[in-house]
Formats: sequence, C-alpha cells, structure tokens
Amino acid sequence: MISFESDYIAGAHPQIIARLAETNMEILSGYGTDKYCESAKEKIRRACRCSEAEVEFLIGGTQTNAVVISTMLKDYEGVVAAKTGHINVHEAGAIENTNHKVLELPHENGKIAPEALAAYLESFYADCNHEHMVFPGMVYITHPTEYGTLYTKQELTKLSELCQSYKIPLYLDGARLGYGLMSLQTDVTLEDIATLCDVFYIGGTKVGALCGEAVVFTKQNKPRYFMTSVKKRGALLAKGRLLGIQFDALFTDDLYFKISRHGIDMAEQLKTVLRETHQRFYLETPTNQQFIIWEKKQFEALQEKVAVSFWEDYDNEHVVVRLATSWSTTEAEIHQLRSLLDGKNL
Amino acid sequence: MISFESDYIAGAHPQIIARLAETNMEILSGYGTDKYCESAKEKIRRACRCSEAEVEFLIGGTQTNAVVISTMLKDYEGVVAAKTGHINVHEAGAIENTNHKVLELPHENGKIAPEALAAYLESFYADCNHEHMVFPGMVYITHPTEYGTLYTKQELTKLSELCQSYKIPLYLDGARLGYGLMSLQTDVTLEDIATLCDVFYIGGTKVGALCGEAVVFTKQNKPRYFMTSVKKRGALLAKGRLLGIQFDALFTDDLYFKISRHGIDMAEQLKTVLRETHQRFYLETPTNQQFIIWEKKQFEALQEKVAVSFWEDYDNEHVVVRLATSWSTTEAEIHQLRSLLDGKNL
Amino acid sequence: MISFESDYIAGAHPQIIARLAETNMEILSGYGTDKYCESAKEKIRRACRCSEAEVEFLIGGTQTNAVVISTMLKDYEGVVAAKTGHINVHEAGAIENTNHKVLELPHENGKIAPEALAAYLESFYADCNHEHMVFPGMVYITHPTEYGTLYTKQELTKLSELCQSYKIPLYLDGARLGYGLMSLQTDVTLEDIATLCDVFYIGGTKVGALCGEAVVFTKQNKPRYFMTSVKKRGALLAKGRLLGIQFDALFTDDLYFKISRHGIDMAEQLKTVLRETHQRFYLETPTNQQFIIWEKKQFEALQEKVAVSFWEDYDNEHVVVRLATSWSTTEAEIHQLRSLLDGKNL
Amino acid sequence: MISFESDYIAGAHPQIIARLAETNMEILSGYGTDKYCESAKEKIRRACRCSEAEVEFLIGGTQTNAVVISTMLKDYEGVVAAKTGHINVHEAGAIENTNHKVLELPHENGKIAPEALAAYLESFYADCNHEHMVFPGMVYITHPTEYGTLYTKQELTKLSELCQSYKIPLYLDGARLGYGLMSLQTDVTLEDIATLCDVFYIGGTKVGALCGEAVVFTKQNKPRYFMTSVKKRGALLAKGRLLGIQFDALFTDDLYFKISRHGIDMAEQLKTVLRETHQRFYLETPTNQQFIIWEKKQFEALQEKVAVSFWEDYDNEHVVVRLATSWSTTEAEIHQLRSLLDGKNL
Repeated sequence: MISFESDYIAGAHPQIIARLAETNMEILSGYGTDKYCESAKEKIRRACRCSEAEVEFLIGGTQTNAVVISTMLKDYEGVVAAKTGHINVHEAGAIENTNHKVLELPHENGKIAPEALAAYLESFYADCNHEHMVFPGMVYITHPTEYGTLYTKQELTKLSELCQSYKIPLYLDGARLGYGLMSLQTDVTLEDIATLCDVFYIGGTKVGALCGEAVVFTKQNKPRYFMTSVKKRGALLAKGRLLGIQFDALFTDDLYFKISRHGIDMAEQLKTVLRETHQRFYLETPTNQQFIIWEKKQFEALQEKVAVSFWEDYDNEHVVVRLATSWSTTEAEIHQLRSLLDGKNL
Repeated sequence: MISFESDYIAGAHPQIIARLAETNMEILSGYGTDKYCESAKEKIRRACRCSEAEVEFLIGGTQTNAVVISTMLKDYEGVVAAKTGHINVHEAGAIENTNHKVLELPHENGKIAPEALAAYLESFYADCNHEHMVFPGMVYITHPTEYGTLYTKQELTKLSELCQSYKIPLYLDGARLGYGLMSLQTDVTLEDIATLCDVFYIGGTKVGALCGEAVVFTKQNKPRYFMTSVKKRGALLAKGRLLGIQFDALFTDDLYFKISRHGIDMAEQLKTVLRETHQRFYLETPTNQQFIIWEKKQFEALQEKVAVSFWEDYDNEHVVVRLATSWSTTEAEIHQLRSLLDGKNL
Repeated sequence: MISFESDYIAGAHPQIIARLAETNMEILSGYGTDKYCESAKEKIRRACRCSEAEVEFLIGGTQTNAVVISTMLKDYEGVVAAKTGHINVHEAGAIENTNHKVLELPHENGKIAPEALAAYLESFYADCNHEHMVFPGMVYITHPTEYGTLYTKQELTKLSELCQSYKIPLYLDGARLGYGLMSLQTDVTLEDIATLCDVFYIGGTKVGALCGEAVVFTKQNKPRYFMTSVKKRGALLAKGRLLGIQFDALFTDDLYFKISRHGIDMAEQLKTVLRETHQRFYLETPTNQQFIIWEKKQFEALQEKVAVSFWEDYDNEHVVVRLATSWSTTEAEIHQLRSLLDGKNL
Repeated sequence: MISFESDYIAGAHPQIIARLAETNMEILSGYGTDKYCESAKEKIRRACRCSEAEVEFLIGGTQTNAVVISTMLKDYEGVVAAKTGHINVHEAGAIENTNHKVLELPHENGKIAPEALAAYLESFYADCNHEHMVFPGMVYITHPTEYGTLYTKQELTKLSELCQSYKIPLYLDGARLGYGLMSLQTDVTLEDIATLCDVFYIGGTKVGALCGEAVVFTKQNKPRYFMTSVKKRGALLAKGRLLGIQFDALFTDDLYFKISRHGIDMAEQLKTVLRETHQRFYLETPTNQQFIIWEKKQFEALQEKVAVSFWEDYDNEHVVVRLATSWSTTEAEIHQLRSLLDGKNL
C-alpha cells in the first residue's frame, strides 16, 4: 500500500525529531518565551528579508485562521474569501464562531481574480444600504490554493494594491507555502509575500512538522496583547518549545525550502507518470497536489493498492481524486504507482 | 412629496394607537406576562388553526431571526438560505454574530428551489469530509421574499418534506407575511404555513405595528427556557404590553388581514399605473413591492417629487428602483404618482 | 389592588402617548434618521451641557449594556462591575454572550468603592501573569444602583480619575437616572455625569417611556460604524421614530425631570408612611426604591392588597421586599398603603 | 541554576520521545483516526475501569476546558466554579469567549465545599427572578486544585450527588491529575473519578507529555458530532498521532502513574527540605506544588540560583512563592536546593 492521500500522513522530518530529542531535557520557559522560539523568529525574519516582521507560532491551520482573522477584523467587518476558500468550506464554521462573516467571491481554480475583488469592493461602497451589511475588512487568499494553483506576482501585486487602497489587510494562508515557493512555475518569492501581504502564515503541519504554523505580521501590525487573545481562544501552547524547536530546525540551513523542493520534484515525477500512463487530468497544477478524473469502479479497484483523496463526483460514472506528494514522498512510491497504473491500462 | 420608499414609513394603524392610549394607565406585569400578550397569543393560535402553537413576541425582524435561528441550531450546524436571503445580506452579520454560518444556496427571484435544496442536502451527506464542514441544521425562507415573490403551496410542501426527511426545521421569515397571504395570486394560507413550517414569524413592523414580530412555534418545539435565551440576547422587552397590545389589536376582527389586503389593493392599482404609463418592469410581483428600471437622470429628476428605494444599478445608464405599498398607502398617492409619471412621459 | 412592584408597571407618560398619536401618520425615514431623533438628540446634548456629545437610542437596558460594552471593549478586555451589578446578575449572561467577562468587585450597598477599584487595578498590573488574565477594559456603575443608592460627586470624581489614569472608559448605567438626579440627597447633576463619564445612558423605560434608552458618548468616542454594530446585534429599530418621539417629548419642557421629581416626591411620602407605620427598613434610600423587612406571613397576607417585589430571604421567618414609586405613582396609592399598614398594625 | 518554577519546564518523558521517533515514518490517517489514538483510548478506558467511556484527545488545558464546557452547556446555562478556579482567573476569558458565564462560588484552599454548592443551587431555584439569570449548568472542579489541594472521596461523592440531583454534569479538570492520584494522602482513585464525574480530563502537558489532554466522557454523554465542534473551535489536530502516540506511551506499563509517583516522591523530599530549613509554609499540600512565604529581598537574592513562581504578595515585605516538582525533577536538584537554603540560613 502506497499513499498519496495527503501531505500530512507521515510524522515530522527526521531532523526535527532529532532536535526534539536533543533538547528534550533542557529547562525552558513556557508559552513561547524560550530561546528556540526567539531563534526561529529571527531566522524567519531573515528568510523573509523583513527585519521588522513580528512572528508568532500557532498549532494548526484552522486555529491560525480563526485567531488571525478575528483579532484583526473590526466588529462590523467580515473577511472576503473565494467560495472555495478553506475558511469558507472546510473549517466547520471556525470564522463564524468568532462572530464574523465570510464574504464569498467567485473563484478561478481556487483563486480570487483581482478584477472580481475590485468590482465587489466598488459595488459595496456604492450601495446606499451598506451600513446594514457586513463590511469587507480583510482579504483572505490561499497560496497554493485548495486546488494547488498559484497566484502570479502580478496578481498578488494587484490584490495588494486593492487592499491598500481600501485600507484593509491582505492575509495569505500558506498552509502549503513551501510547495508554492519551490514550484518550477512561480515568480513569487517569500520576500515578495512579506512585501505584498500584511500578514501571512508559513505552514509547518503540511511541510515537515508534527504541528505548527508561523504567523508573520509584516507591517508592525500584530494586534496588541496578542498573547492574551491567543490564550482567550484556547490556542496558547504551554510548552511553546514544541513549536520553536520545530521551526528553528526548518529554518536552519534552508531545510524548509529543501524539503519543499523535494515535494515538488516528486510532484513533477508524479505528473510525468500520470501523463505517460494517460490519466485524464481534471487539473494539472504547479504544486504538490494533482487532480485526476477516474472511473468510479477503477477508483474502487485501486483503493486497496494506493491511497488517494476523493475530491468530488465528476459525473455519474466518474470521480475527481487528488494525489498529493510531500517532503516524505519517495521515488520508490512513484515507481510503484507507475507499475500500478501501467498494469491497470487505465 | 409622496412616498413609496418602504412599508415602514408611517407610524402604526390608528386602531393600535387607540388601544395603546386606552390601556395606557393600566397596571400590568412585565416581560410579556400580561393579559394582552396572553390574549394576542390565543388569537394568533386561532388564526393559525393550530391550538398547540407556542407564540412569543419579539421587537424586530433581525432580532427575531437571530434569536430563533441561534436557539434552534445545534453547535455544529448552520442555516441554509438563499444567496439573497435577508439574513445573508442585510442583517450586518447578525447570524454569524451568534456563531453560526449562513449556508448559501442559489436563488430564483429570491426563492430556494426545492430541487436545489434536495441536491445540496444529498451532496452534503455524500461528502466524506462533511464532519469538517458546517452541517445544514435549518432551512430559512422568506415569504414574501426580498423580491416580493411567493412560494406556491406545492413548493412549500416540497421544502417541508425535505426538511422532515432530514429532520431539520423549516423556518419562514414573514416580515411581510400579511401582504403574501392577501396576494391575489397565492394558494398559501396562514393555516398552510402553520402546518408546513416548524417555526415562522408574523411580521408586525411592516404591517401596521410600531414594532413587533410574533414568532409561532408550531410543533411544541419552543426552545426550553426561551425567555432566558431572549434576555441573554438583549431582546426581552420590559414593557411587553407594547407588543401584546399591538398584536391583540391586529388579530381582533381580522385587522391584520384587512390592512394587508388594503396594501395589496394599492399594489394592484400601482401596477396598473406603472403599466399604463409604460414603465419598464424589472420584476412585477404578486405582493406589495414592485421593481422598475429607470434611467438614472429620470430617477434623479423624480426624487424631489416621489420617494422610492434605489435597489441596484441595472447598467451604466439605468437603475432598478423599488416601489412599495402598505397598509398606509392611499389612493390619492397612487393618483399623484400617475400624474407625475404621465407628465414625465417616461 | 395597588402596586409598588416596580417602576415599569404603567404604559407611558400621557404626553408621550399624545405625541405618538399626533405624529402617527407623518412619513418619516427609518432606522433613527428621522427629524424627531435629531431633535431629541439636540435637546439631550443641551440638557447635558455637552455640545459634542453623540447620542444614540436603543430599546432596553440589557440591550444597551451589551451593545455599549461590547463595542467599546477590546478583544482582551472585560468590564469591571460590582458583584451586585445588573450586568453581573440579572441580564442572563448578556455580556458574556458578547465574549467578554464581567470582572466582579465587592460592593457597598450596590456601589463600587473607589478604594476597591484602585486596589484591584493596581494589583492586576502588578501580577506577572496578567497576560493570562482578562484585562480591565471599562468600569461599569449603576446610578442609582440596584439598591437605590447614589454615588456622591466626590466618589464619581475619584472613579473617573482612576479610569482616566488607566485609560479605560467609565460607563454609567442610568436605567433610573431621573430618580437619581431628582433625589433630595444628591449633589450630582446631569452635567456632572456628562463630564465625569465617558459614556452613560439615560433610562426611558423606567422613567415614563414605553421603551427606550438614550446612550450618550461624551468624548467623541462613539465606536465607528456604530449603526452597523447595533444592527449586527439585532438592536436596530426599523421605526426609530418610536424612540425619537418619546425622548423628544421627555426632553421638552423638562418633562423627564418633572416626572422623575414626582417619583421622588412619592418616594418621600412612601418613606414617611413606612416610618410612621413602624416598618423595619432593610435599606432606606434617597431614590425611588425602598427596602423593607417583613414577616413572611404578613407578606403573604398583604399580597392580595398591595403588590411589591420579593427581594430576598432575610432569615427563616422574614423576607426583604422592595417598594418602588415612579412617575405614575399617585398620592391616593400612598394613602391606601398607609391605611393597609395601619390596619395591619405590623 | 535549578528550577522548581512549574511542572512544564522540560520536554517529554524520554519514552515518549522514543515512541515518536520509532513511529515517525509510518503512514497514518489524520484527525485522530489512527491506530495509536485507538490503542490509547482503549488503555485509558481500562485504566478507568470504565468500558463505556468515550475518550478524546485535545492539545492543551484551556482549550480542553473551553471545548468541553461550551459543548456540554445549554444556551441559558453557565458553569459553576470556585473563585480561584483556573477557568475563572487564568484562562483570559476563554469560557466567556464561548458565550457562557463562569458562576463564582467561594473557595476553601481552591476547593468548592459541597455545602456551599448545595446552598447556591437551592437559592438559585428559590429566586423568583431566576429566569433573568444564568442557570447553573455544570460544576467545574480542579483536582488537584490550583493550590495543590485534593478533594476527599467523600467530598467528591457529595458533589456528584448534588449534580445528579440537579441533573447537571460534574466536570473535573485533571491538568495535574497524576500527582493527585499518586499523592500519599488521597483516598481517590482514577476509577472513583470515572464513577463520580460525568466528564474529566487526564492531563498530559504537566505529566510527561509535550502537549495533550485526554478527555473522558464517562456516561455515554459525548456531545454529538464532537469532532465538528472541536474543528469549529480550531482545536482539531491534523496529525492526531502526536496525541495518540503520547497517551499510548503514558498508559503503557503504568508509565503515567509511575512518573506521577516520582513527582510526588520529589515533592515529599522537597517538603522535608523546606521544613528542615525552617521555611515558612503558606500552604503545605499533598501534591506536587508547595507554597512558601519568603522575604522579598531573599526572594530576589535566590532568583539567580533557583527558579520558583511568584504567587502573590503576602504583605509589604513578604511574598508567596510556589515550588513545583514533576516527573522531571531529580534528587540532585532537591539536594542543591537544600544546600542553597541551608547556606542562606533563611
């Protein structure tokens, strides 16, 4: 059995486990005030080339979205997101649980088109009833998106300019950020993101950590008494070292980028296998998630040999499935998949 | 200056004012425990032909929606509504403020098509990730809708059956219910609504009262300690008599139905005037709201003589406007409008 | 049957009913934008001698407290109140429902002692764990208190200075403010309150209105887009005229003060009767609420002739009851009470 | 430098680190559905001798309290706690953030006296205004308490009976449960707790884990769709294995009890040192936290050699400090402390 089910099926990168073991008996202060958190923050600031960035560590993606969005929105505001945005679909209403509405925009393969955002913002303020409506108070994007797609630097720049002109923050959910930055088809760097976004997070859970996301506030805009607000939301980890040590390891000797690049290399090999075995792409993407259309019975037959994610029904007889690579994917697994697909003559 | 701006531009029906004056110095207990509240509840039960209905009075529509929806949903549930539903657009996020998501469905002139609801519910439970998503826990409809349209008895019946089969309540927002029930083109009665819906409210604010909405729980399903939950939401009126006396008056000698019928009669005369003066309908409806397309400059020119509601831009040169009649509209106003539109040669 | 049960047992002062009737068929814009709201706001600003005050009308006291407190607190803050404060005991958790904690201080007959507040604030910031605790973000006081007592000008000044030095607003709940201002034993004027408090409300419900409270922001500190936040909380009245007309009447020709003074005059007569009939005071207050200790059986015997409020058990054989006067109390009722108590020889 | 600052200053017990390393590259499903979670749950059920218990893993204590309390309370209810309860003081308002009030009772060294609970519950329902108040919907206790004290079996039994008679759950916060169960002065077993409490949690963070708490619902009373409610609160860990593997290790070969017993053994040695060096106890407890009164200048002088927790000011010249032992405390540290205190001749 091989698995392309997701990018969080293995534990942590072995160097992380090693560091956790090495530091285990050190006496460290709690709640993120230890030296590893400090060191990790400094390394992230340097990687972003943003010396004034404020970095905070949280445990998971949904928690991070809820904490960041709810502490940055004003009472009368909601957050703009693509209809397919993770916060709008797969977080069980975690944003609404903070008393804020997710304001849906249409999507293009998971992305918000700058033109769609511009039109929405303009029409909102043109509406004479807008004081009875939820104000757009932040724009939320994912990069890579839920569909594995990427914004271009030009698109990000336009979104950023729009946000600036309306004085609302642009927030980038980087749950899979490493795979986006290391894509062979991107012109967006970590430095670009730190320049163009007001706040973003660097995903750890899906890129080699046991858990953890690093939030970066780029404009000296971290909400005041952020630690108290984090605690209020049940999101403050007593042994903050668990997050600090992991991110310190990930940002030592470019580990985060190297293992992300490995995930992308595996994705490129995966795409080659999929193409050469004549699979039908639903969406071929520049990152670590690929979407394929399979007949239902073939999907069922393969389920015993290879784990993939059911995505959605395509039609009565076909389904869309997702295959994900990651830092832990091996070439052997890719080869096994080729054998399986060859043998099946799909 | 005449006004078709909305159906809440005047005070209350004169009989309501008279009753408030007559009862003013009576000593009555507070918080909705007085004899007028009791009497009004009994009259509403009878009008609904639903002897087991539980009736409660609240002050306004947004408050009513937030109280009813949040006390009936379970923690993991949201409320299904048309994209154009009042709770989804014009209540400033009042539902999200109770920690629940509004789950958008497409609309047909403000209505949810039973087929669309069926497809959504089926696909939700078919999705293997649905425990990461907000569960559909209630269906919210407006009748008349925000576009003045009405459900047929057949449509209501289908929605009701779907809700029953998924064991979730059907909730009808009747802010303008009187105008729907007295429409010349409806086959839906108040009794039908009490039979088909699990909970609904009879709008007072837009149908002759100074304020007030009567919530009707039809299936012995009023949330336990509802009064405490109302108080917790800041929605409990100390002098509950203000609501009881008004609804007692509205449901004495069919006043509610008579004044609603007057609003519909005025709407029929309005439609005649609009047609005979060759206005371009955006939407001609069976209730008290009519939607017309005007050139922007004509709209501006008329604004000094007749008040209407700007609804939305139609194109660069045209706008959609809404004209509403109500219990307080007079034939004289309709005649004045005809003169204006004739004179304008639009 | 006579009643001293509360100060909201009658409808509205007759002049208010008259004004509602006179203006009833006027066409007015909704949501508090009508001319009566404007006029009432201006009259209140003048009565407060605070030309820069921002005035907003809400419907009831619990609603007002929840809206004001939750829109003024920051995410990490709670509101400081006496243990006996209305928000801490009798509002069903309406403040907590906005995600904020009520921080209890001990009380002295319903009042917060400035010394107790000073000690609490000092110790809070001295605690090295205070970032794990709810920050004090506002001080809430009632005047008159739930026990009918009043702050002196010196006490109010000290509380105000403390709040200023910690940069947190002082909020005064004036549900019964008129009876406090017209007390024979107060040195606090409405102007003092407008000077010393950052925000307060002038109670209408208990002082002659059918409903309604006037919130006064005294320091140009009304939260931005307050109307949207009010709507989000289900507290925006469509026919705002109902509040505007009532407060316009109350602040025309000093009606608010005159009827409050009547309530106080009746309270003075009541106290005389209670003393002369040898009732045992639990608390004799300078405002419209008096607290008496009765034997349980006498309480039960009197219940058919005079309505009072049960307050709490005093001991196994005695209870504390509250007798309230108001703008609607008559001398005849006081005389009837005297006869009852004389006859009873309590 | 030695540290008695808290029981979460070290990483995890070495066997936990070893198990994380051994299992690291296994492919496991996410969100707590893996085999290690299953195994850990079964072992916990057996340790509790409660075969029908439902066990769920969460990340930290504040999160656990907020999730459990808010999913078990009804809308109109709050949670009863000692004034000193962790949820009432040191969780930054996390319970109020879920829209529920913490109802304070007086404490006796951190404990709720059964008599105080009985009196409160009785008086609540005797109050004729209780529908305007927050209903008591759960009783929250800590064991050991924040003061290191323990309930006796008799006290727990009385609290449990009271809760049963009012039909509200008894919830025990066991952040430090191991140290309570292994105390030399307790008659309460894990089985007792599973029998007497409706829900409780077994703390991992302070008893050898990197993070994690195991919630045990003992009466088939786990809230429906609990996983969705956990996700909604941002508390669902993608790599649930991190929690499953740790608790599986802790409940293999009684590791949890053995390391807790070590913490208690160290506490007994600590108490001996404190007594023999004539320290002044503020509170000598049967568990792993001891409270000492020190002169401020001595406290400052010692701070460079031994880390302890400042607890509170005792008077102008003295402070209360807390010394905690844990699974990671060594005899060498105790000896060093003795030398320090001897040398200091405090």
